[in-house]
Amino acid sequence: MPDNRPIGVFDSGIGGLTVVRELMSLMPNEAIVYFGDTARVPYGPKSPATVSRYSQEAASFLMSRDVKMVVIACNTATAHAAERLAELLPVPVVGVIEPGARAAVKATTSARVGVIGTSGTIGSGAYDLAVRRRLPDARVYAQPCPLFVPIVEEGWFSHGAARLVAQDYLEPLLEMDVDVLILGCTHYPLLRELIAEIMGPDVALVDSAAETAREVSDVLEKYDLRRTDPKPPSHTFAASDAPLRFRDIGRSFVGDVLSVVELVDVEAIGHRPEVFSAP
Amino acid sequence: MPDNRPIGVFDSGIGGLTVVRELMSLMPNEAIVYFGDTARVPYGPKSPATVSRYSQEAASFLMSRDVKMVVIACNTATAHAAERLAELLPVPVVGVIEPGARAAVKATTSARVGVIGTSGTIGSGAYDLAVRRRLPDARVYAQPCPLFVPIVEEGWFSHGAARLVAQDYLEPLLEMDVDVLILGCTHYPLLRELIAEIMGPDVALVDSAAETAREVSDVLEKYDLRRTDPKPPSHTFAASDAPLRFRDIGRSFVGDVLSVVELVDVEAIGHRPEVFSAP
Repeated sequence: MPDNRPIGVFDSGIGGLTVVRELMSLMPNEAIVYFGDTARVPYGPKSPATVSRYSQEAASFLMSRDVKMVVIACNTATAHAAERLAELLPVPVVGVIEPGARAAVKATTSARVGVIGTSGTIGSGAYDLAVRRRLPDARVYAQPCPLFVPIVEEGWFSHGAARLVAQDYLEPLLEMDVDVLILGCTHYPLLRELIAEIMGPDVALVDSAAETAREVSDVLEKYDLRRTDPKPPSHTFAASDAPLRFRDIGRSFVGDVLSVVELVDVEAIGHRPEVFSAP
Repeated sequence: MPDNRPIGVFDSGIGGLTVVRELMSLMPNEAIVYFGDTARVPYGPKSPATVSRYSQEAASFLMSRDVKMVVIACNTATAHAAERLAELLPVPVVGVIEPGARAAVKATTSARVGVIGTSGTIGSGAYDLAVRRRLPDARVYAQPCPLFVPIVEEGWFSHGAARLVAQDYLEPLLEMDVDVLILGCTHYPLLRELIAEIMGPDVALVDSAAETAREVSDVLEKYDLRRTDPKPPSHTFAASDAPLRFRDIGRSFVGDVLSVVELVDVEAIGHRPEVFSAP
């Protein structure tokens, strides 16, 4: 039966809007509730336990807004909390790692796969596992790139310093002769041009955002959860800190659809077990 | 009357250990309780309200450990919360901004003062105010350097990329012909060599950490709060996330005195009004 409730999406901050952009483009009739945890961004360098707790709080907020599914639009949160949330939540949960791994496996011919991400994502080994579950002979070369997020947040997409940093990080992957590189962080598509230039034309870049949107569409289809309301959907954006800054930067991702940003005290919401039980 | 209780010090993360190092060197008989809010680091880009709340929670933790004064070893927290904490706490509060401003005023001959810091510190205008209160004719040129903290955390003190980033940030200050530059973030002393090289020999660099330690010493002296216990002091280090990583990186700041790091759930502590009242 169709389901007119919104899709819930969360991220440590603003990067998850790259996933929202793909969702809106692929499924323009779906309503979205987005939460960015800007009060505690970034998740990348933080411990699995802390990231898992923050993710449960974000999911609690989304569930309180009656969403029909939860999309974890953050690689670090997916690495540390996707399984737990899938167990806990009474709605489908989609992360960004499985879709990215699937696309990488489709694209590789040499089975030599590169992955870049935050220290948390790379340290978790989640991409390695997800790729080798599908392609047991694959060699996965993983490289943490902790400076990429701050560089993107500074807007230095083609600054000389960004190039030097990228060369330093990507050099080992070039030496390993990968033919696919997974951009394992929602911020990285904004550095795509620079990364493509350094990796060269023979390396396919996999952007998890687009793959994740396809996965979300498949899940809605499979469980017959599409929104069928003929009225145009309305979207909700919320952040745990600095909503005006979120709006101003966020517009470069999704445009004018981002007009009002709610401020949410996510620590006060906490992890509410009651919202995790089925309605 | 002498006071054998410890000095409380907090920071958004690990950078405040530069202040601890100076405190230990200047006052080897004082005990220290340090709290680094690694679960919510960085404070630099976050809103004044959120940074003020986090600072009150950190101070609550320190007060629960019976400290005789609170040192805010973080420029952003000082900018957004020093006045409020000084009002609320029943013990003396010392931030890093006033000592840095005082040293800059002493050092300048041209009254053209440069300041670098996080977006939050620079946006607050706190250094501008503190310098011009002492030297009304001063011209203060302030430059946010958001990538310096991630570069320090990556350990790239003399990487080519660090140089390009520093040149980009510092160029405008060179053009303004400042003769003093305040390193307005506790991470920046680790980039001191690079910054000195770019600014040239005619620009004095002011490191708030050393100045703050002198201020702490003055306050202890003034109120007769020195520790006189002949036993060597024991120190406590606590962090809200990833204590092992904190210890490993922290040792490069303060050495082997950093051996055990407690994990503290600062959100559970919250802001406890009762610890703010005098004993």
